[in-house]
Amino acid sequence: MSKPRFPALSLFVAATAGRNMTRPAYVAVAVGVGTMVLLTLDPAYEAAHRWVDAVMFACLAFFVFEWVVRLRHAIHSQRGLAYSFTFRGLVDLAGAATVPVAFAAGAGPQSAWLFGVLWLLKLVPGIPGLRQLRRVVVLESGPLFSVLVIFLMVVFLASVAEHFLERDIQPQTFGSVPAALWWAVVTLTTTGYGDVVPVTPLGRMVAALVMISGLGVFGLWTGIMATGFAAETRRDNFLKTWESVSKVPFFAALGPAAIADVTNMLRTMDLPPRTMIIRKGQQGDCMYFIAAGEVEVDLPGGKKVALGEGAFFGEMALLGNATRNADITTTGVTRLLVLDLVDFRLLMARHPELGQTIDAEAKRRALENK
Amino acid sequence: MSKPRFPALSLFVAATAGRNMTRPAYVAVAVGVGTMVLLTLDPAYEAAHRWVDAVMFACLAFFVFEWVVRLRHAIHSQRGLAYSFTFRGLVDLAGAATVPVAFAAGAGPQSAWLFGVLWLLKLVPGIPGLRQLRRVVVLESGPLFSVLVIFLMVVFLASVAEHFLERDIQPQTFGSVPAALWWAVVTLTTTGYGDVVPVTPLGRMVAALVMISGLGVFGLWTGIMATGFAAETRRDNFLKTWESVSKVPFFAALGPAAIADVTNMLRTMDLPPRTMIIRKGQQGDCMYFIAAGEVEVDLPGGKKVALGEGAFFGEMALLGNATRNADITTTGVTRLLVLDLVDFRLLMARHPELGQTIDAEAKRRALENK
Amino acid sequence: MSKPRFPALSLFVAATAGRNMTRPAYVAVAVGVGTMVLLTLDPAYEAAHRWVDAVMFACLAFFVFEWVVRLRHAIHSQRGLAYSFTFRGLVDLAGAATVPVAFAAGAGPQSAWLFGVLWLLKLVPGIPGLRQLRRVVVLESGPLFSVLVIFLMVVFLASVAEHFLERDIQPQTFGSVPAALWWAVVTLTTTGYGDVVPVTPLGRMVAALVMISGLGVFGLWTGIMATGFAAETRRDNFLKTWESVSKVPFFAALGPAAIADVTNMLRTMDLPPRTMIIRKGQQGDCMYFIAAGEVEVDLPGGKKVALGEGAFFGEMALLGNATRNADITTTGVTRLLVLDLVDFRLLMARHPELGQTIDAEAKRRALENK
Amino acid sequence: MSKPRFPALSLFVAATAGRNMTRPAYVAVAVGVGTMVLLTLDPAYEAAHRWVDAVMFACLAFFVFEWVVRLRHAIHSQRGLAYSFTFRGLVDLAGAATVPVAFAAGAGPQSAWLFGVLWLLKLVPGIPGLRQLRRVVVLESGPLFSVLVIFLMVVFLASVAEHFLERDIQPQTFGSVPAALWWAVVTLTTTGYGDVVPVTPLGRMVAALVMISGLGVFGLWTGIMATGFAAETRRDNFLKTWESVSKVPFFAALGPAAIADVTNMLRTMDLPPRTMIIRKGQQGDCMYFIAAGEVEVDLPGGKKVALGEGAFFGEMALLGNATRNADITTTGVTRLLVLDLVDFRLLMARHPELGQTIDAEAKRRALENK
Repeated sequence: MSKPRFPALSLFVAATAGRNMTRPAYVAVAVGVGTMVLLTLDPAYEAAHRWVDAVMFACLAFFVFEWVVRLRHAIHSQRGLAYSFTFRGLVDLAGAATVPVAFAAGAGPQSAWLFGVLWLLKLVPGIPGLRQLRRVVVLESGPLFSVLVIFLMVVFLASVAEHFLERDIQPQTFGSVPAALWWAVVTLTTTGYGDVVPVTPLGRMVAALVMISGLGVFGLWTGIMATGFAAETRRDNFLKTWESVSKVPFFAALGPAAIADVTNMLRTMDLPPRTMIIRKGQQGDCMYFIAAGEVEVDLPGGKKVALGEGAFFGEMALLGNATRNADITTTGVTRLLVLDLVDFRLLMARHPELGQTIDAEAKRRALENK
Repeated sequence: MSKPRFPALSLFVAATAGRNMTRPAYVAVAVGVGTMVLLTLDPAYEAAHRWVDAVMFACLAFFVFEWVVRLRHAIHSQRGLAYSFTFRGLVDLAGAATVPVAFAAGAGPQSAWLFGVLWLLKLVPGIPGLRQLRRVVVLESGPLFSVLVIFLMVVFLASVAEHFLERDIQPQTFGSVPAALWWAVVTLTTTGYGDVVPVTPLGRMVAALVMISGLGVFGLWTGIMATGFAAETRRDNFLKTWESVSKVPFFAALGPAAIADVTNMLRTMDLPPRTMIIRKGQQGDCMYFIAAGEVEVDLPGGKKVALGEGAFFGEMALLGNATRNADITTTGVTRLLVLDLVDFRLLMARHPELGQTIDAEAKRRALENK
Repeated sequence: MSKPRFPALSLFVAATAGRNMTRPAYVAVAVGVGTMVLLTLDPAYEAAHRWVDAVMFACLAFFVFEWVVRLRHAIHSQRGLAYSFTFRGLVDLAGAATVPVAFAAGAGPQSAWLFGVLWLLKLVPGIPGLRQLRRVVVLESGPLFSVLVIFLMVVFLASVAEHFLERDIQPQTFGSVPAALWWAVVTLTTTGYGDVVPVTPLGRMVAALVMISGLGVFGLWTGIMATGFAAETRRDNFLKTWESVSKVPFFAALGPAAIADVTNMLRTMDLPPRTMIIRKGQQGDCMYFIAAGEVEVDLPGGKKVALGEGAFFGEMALLGNATRNADITTTGVTRLLVLDLVDFRLLMARHPELGQTIDAEAKRRALENK
Repeated sequence: MSKPRFPALSLFVAATAGRNMTRPAYVAVAVGVGTMVLLTLDPAYEAAHRWVDAVMFACLAFFVFEWVVRLRHAIHSQRGLAYSFTFRGLVDLAGAATVPVAFAAGAGPQSAWLFGVLWLLKLVPGIPGLRQLRRVVVLESGPLFSVLVIFLMVVFLASVAEHFLERDIQPQTFGSVPAALWWAVVTLTTTGYGDVVPVTPLGRMVAALVMISGLGVFGLWTGIMATGFAAETRRDNFLKTWESVSKVPFFAALGPAAIADVTNMLRTMDLPPRTMIIRKGQQGDCMYFIAAGEVEVDLPGGKKVALGEGAFFGEMALLGNATRNADITTTGVTRLLVLDLVDFRLLMARHPELGQTIDAEAKRRALENK
């Protein structure tokens, strides 16, 4: 299982050691977990005993191999210990080691292979938007924690009350507080299995209060999440605008204060599809950044060029050349960020270094177009 | 079933071939699906065997006929293939073909007619606001997908854990992972049928965690939806304002940059019912667009004219004639968009072509009022 | 039961005929509905037969009497027919007539008195904030209706699918589409009684999809509500600010355009408790409106005066007298709306009639303080 | 149990009498409630009878002692009565007195100790963010109350309808309105135990309506909460910004109007990690407040200083010394509040007292740096 013996495979894994997930790893996770699920179906397992075992061992071998290669790679680049204690390192270790350890501890195949479900955790770093969700949860952790504490308090108070009210009539289900706690969680989350149900009038009144509290907890929880999510989205949009702006050649040299200034001066403009933004020969007085959607530039030679998210156009208007030299049309619903000449001049007044950059750029473009 | 044989009906359908749904189609869907539901009630079906079959065949005939006419219409206008693969084309085909195919494959009437439920899909293009909902889901698809992945991971991890903890005590319900998966989905969505319930203390603790995670998933999901919906509503309002503005004669000629300028300069003004907006003889300095609600113009001759959403008034003030010549009052809670003279002049300074349009308009109106 | 016979009671009701609910009516609703609930408890009813009947008849008599008086009042003021067809008129009629009609139709007391629950509807017009809720639902009725249509489509498609998959194994519960519809509604709303549960693997997969769709429906629904509610709250705040502004003597004379201008120029300022807003002898340059909370004015003679929501102070600063003549402090967290002198002057420039009003006011106050 | 006998412990408690919770109190709550839960498990209690009782008595003794000390402390500082009727005083009393009273009233240990759950209430004042949650609920209490009234009305109307429709078929569960009320609450909160389920077609249609109403109630509730939470968060942010601003030495002397002015003039600026904000030797034209995150100041001598939330830097630029004298870089995602020189000058024009403060500060710093 060492490097020299399987040079091709090792090369492949090494090449992708820096990435979160390789395509074969996705396949191995899917096949491994799927087979693990089948394995617990007694008739299926008995019928295809050998095949199932073979597939599971192949998946395990892949993950052990992946872990070994990644560890070697990390040690070679002198961050072996760092890797071992990252989330990814621990998940790789768990994926490689738990099943063999379980077998070594004497567990049967139907128990040991269950740890294969941990392979799913390898997908976590690859979930898109997870970072955003985590930020929301972190930002709103204060109020979310409050709601959790309130939730637990209601659960405890309700279960003690129900235990007191129902223990003589239903000793089986409300005979102890832990048993009543089960009822309280099932009720407050509005899951309501119905395996444990109060029957005395007073017990039912307490239960009704718990259910209505459940609605309240839901409401608070989602209200907090919605607020956090809205704030995060706004922040994300600002950072994205910032990024588009700082990609424009003659803003790149400016400091963050000026870039923030530009970002705040941009007007958002949502356009319906097939709207002409710039007409050739018109006098222009603004430049545009594409925040979402796509526009089509109708170049003089009849050629059409599509510009997508993050691109910008019409910047020549800010450099003194006000006549537009191409038709530009939206292809779908498009969100543009507009920087007006007036605002741009205000900006130059505030940040004189911008003026010099622009003079240089204007000269360069003038030479280019000659 | 070809065109020449039923000229009147064919004419009717052809006339409406461009629209999503005709009134008879709505009736046919309602009658067809309603009858299909009755058909599955054994006593009802046995009693009214013939009538039920007759109604179902009539509905089927209608949909087959509709599909044939639409297809011919599409082929005649040379987009037959395009139509066949749109959502509408596929739904029309499914509505016309699935029941006959089922009969041909030997299914009994109580199975074949069940495909009549697909006729409901014909309603989809007619749902108002569906486009808006779809945009929200598309815009927020990133975070929604993350939540779905998290949901599935919790479901898998929880069901393996419960299978491990409960399989010896409840082999019937937790004996395999697929059986435990059923429990996990029922629990995480807080549906809680109660047909499968963990009974061991550890199993119940895992279940309690799953239920609380269910609340979290709910919270994230609705938070995302709420944010997306708010953004979509804002965008929609901008587009609506844009539309009102671009309908005003002397803005129509301007490019989108100027229209966006106007849209941004408009102040929103919510007025209570029965508020006088303009008094005859007053000096006016702004014009108004009606975004929602209605106003009543009290014309000099005692006549009253109602202006609704999208209309505008007071535009003469921007053209130099500052004296209002009618009383205008709100009839209900009304949202107006106000364009001030000052902002309008700023606009003229930025967009000189506006000045010319307005001079022409002012002359035209002066002539008209002579 | 006519007016001359019970002059005192009749007088009382007539006096309150214009209001939604009188205090005795609240009592009658509570007593009547409470007694109606008791009446259905067989042992309780048998034990206190006479008392229960007496109370119910008393309540009924009150509501009949109320309805007769209101109807007479409405007829006298010549809007009898209008009253009869308002929500209130219909509810009053239902409260007075349904129980006697049920008795007349031969229903026993335990059935006839059940209509007493309709008396609850008399509370509807008195619910605070109901108008706001209704506006949200009306404003968002488009998307809410879409979600409802989607909900019903999922219910129909799912129940036909389950009927097809489960009818042979569970003919009792999935034997017909109406029976399966019951299951679908119980599942899609995540209620999950557990009386009807799919058992086949395919049936369970369909059910899992329905449950996850249930989460989606929840998310859309609450997202729409949250957005609508936020918009409604913003609108409400604008109208409230407008109202505070239009109460200020020297703004009252202005037209709505100027009041909207003022409303838009106001800055919101949230202050912590015990913060000094104005110090005696300081130079003032703004006036304040109290949007929420309370402030305390420390008048020269040592007297303290509290100003609450809707009040304003510091307006002398706008009239040219810049020296504050009292200390003003917040007593709790307070939201102020601030109008700056600079903005005020801008306002005077735009609305010259304001200047005249203010000159007059300044002269009046100068005389007053002499 | 009086002060002189246990001087050390008494001293400790007295020292912390002003705080909500001491660390030992947290431990006592956790141990006490945990043991109380164990106590209700019959086998566990029988096995460890003595130990359990000993622990419970120790916890009780702690709380009685705490209450006595706090009461003495309150009486000494002459607010004994005030303390007794605060939430904290009442909770302390309940924690100390309910168990002994229960024992005195002749309850067995398994009943009397259940009151130990009240010790949990001692945690309430310590929940972070509770004040914020309470404000949301108070602010939105109007619409929340409406939703509650609507909820109760639907519950009553539905349960009477179901009682009428199902009482003959299921006399056990729908035989009286109180029994049907239980079903209605369980259904409208979408808990759905399944112990009481309508079986007649009409009864099921009513139930379906109730479930769909349940979704509506959820939607309204969370919509209201989300709106309230967003408003509260905005308000909180304003107050926090205000606080940062009022900590800056030369703003501290200004009145609240000027501070509000500054707060409104600040631009929010979100920066990615490792972004240079200020470069040594650059010309500065603004000062910064840190609203969230951290920056690193690279002082001339190679020393690095971290500035956290609430700190400010670059203020020398406002005092006339435009050359930055250190590099400043963000260490993570950071939110800055920027005050521009232009806005600052506008501010000085409006608030002349600011100019004097600043002149003094500039002279002091000039002396300091000499």
